[in-house]
Amino acid sequence: MAKSRLEKQIDFAVEIDKLKDVERKTLLMSGVRPETSAEHSWHIALSALFLSEHSRDKDLDLFHVLKMLLIHDLVEIDAGDTYCYDPVDKTAVKQKEQRAAGRIFHLLPLDQSQEFFALWEEFEAGATPEARFANALDRFLPVISSFMTEGLEWKKRGIRRGQVEERARPISEASPTLFDCISRMIEEAVKKGLLRP
Amino acid sequence: MAKSRLEKQIDFAVEIDKLKDVERKTLLMSGVRPETSAEHSWHIALSALFLSEHSRDKDLDLFHVLKMLLIHDLVEIDAGDTYCYDPVDKTAVKQKEQRAAGRIFHLLPLDQSQEFFALWEEFEAGATPEARFANALDRFLPVISSFMTEGLEWKKRGIRRGQVEERARPISEASPTLFDCISRMIEEAVKKGLLRP
Repeated sequence: MAKSRLEKQIDFAVEIDKLKDVERKTLLMSGVRPETSAEHSWHIALSALFLSEHSRDKDLDLFHVLKMLLIHDLVEIDAGDTYCYDPVDKTAVKQKEQRAAGRIFHLLPLDQSQEFFALWEEFEAGATPEARFANALDRFLPVISSFMTEGLEWKKRGIRRGQVEERARPISEASPTLFDCISRMIEEAVKKGLLRP
Repeated sequence: MAKSRLEKQIDFAVEIDKLKDVERKTLLMSGVRPETSAEHSWHIALSALFLSEHSRDKDLDLFHVLKMLLIHDLVEIDAGDTYCYDPVDKTAVKQKEQRAAGRIFHLLPLDQSQEFFALWEEFEAGATPEARFANALDRFLPVISSFMTEGLEWKKRGIRRGQVEERARPISEASPTLFDCISRMIEEAVKKGLLRP
């Protein structure tokens, strides 16, 4: 018998619980363990609510930003978290994530599956003001976490200033204010020896 | 020197990271550990996106629901998580949470602090359609988690059917469909011996 809409939605609600099992490299600011991708998604979605005034685009559809942030990492359930400073085969990661999106979103009723897939693709493409701001937050908060944990995971992995700067660069397009803030933080991190010059 | 808006917002972004350190009684569906309040907040906020069609109120402001869900547990940073089936002094918990809301939200610039405080109070009062639906999701997902983990934490604490039913009752006001779904799940949980009759 075909599943009802609600049955499909419950299947999806159960499936996405697995994002709580995906560990990131970024530590909790308390330093006790790595954060999970679910926690990270919550943190950046909530941060969008009080940081959106710093968006370059003043007509930002914040509701749309929230939707993207809440679902942007779901593909990691299958594809795992890729540390942003690791050298990886980007095409292979992309393919893995595309397959993951296909499998996971298709648990939902077709209309919702298509909506979520489109939101995820919009986030990945980063071409709309909403996607640019969502991506900016995804790059902004982890730098604060690293700074607050005295660069523990930067030091462990020998991360250099240039790597963090390159990762942060797209923030300038979405929000010059947040980009300035991160640039000063990177500067201070180097001075404090948390980050290699 | 007075802090800038952005400095206050960064302080808040750092403070709320602590919600990732707050453990709930509900287990991850993988069963490996309790979920954190941050993970729970993400799960119910995302679930609002694909379950809102089941709301009794068809004009629901879903953006508003999301805002409430993202911030509803922040008071637990100071007040801790109260297990929904534990006998507690509700007035004492309420006072503790009020103080927590005062301290935490006031890290933000005044206008945002007032907005977040109002959202939290609206959620707590549960009097608007949006607050009722947000509260329904907060009660709906944990039952699914308990069911999926074979009632592990229900059994450990000797939870009875009546307790879960009482906790679930307000869902009927917000969504008869979700309430029916949970009622059937409770019925099955009792049959399977996951829940005491």
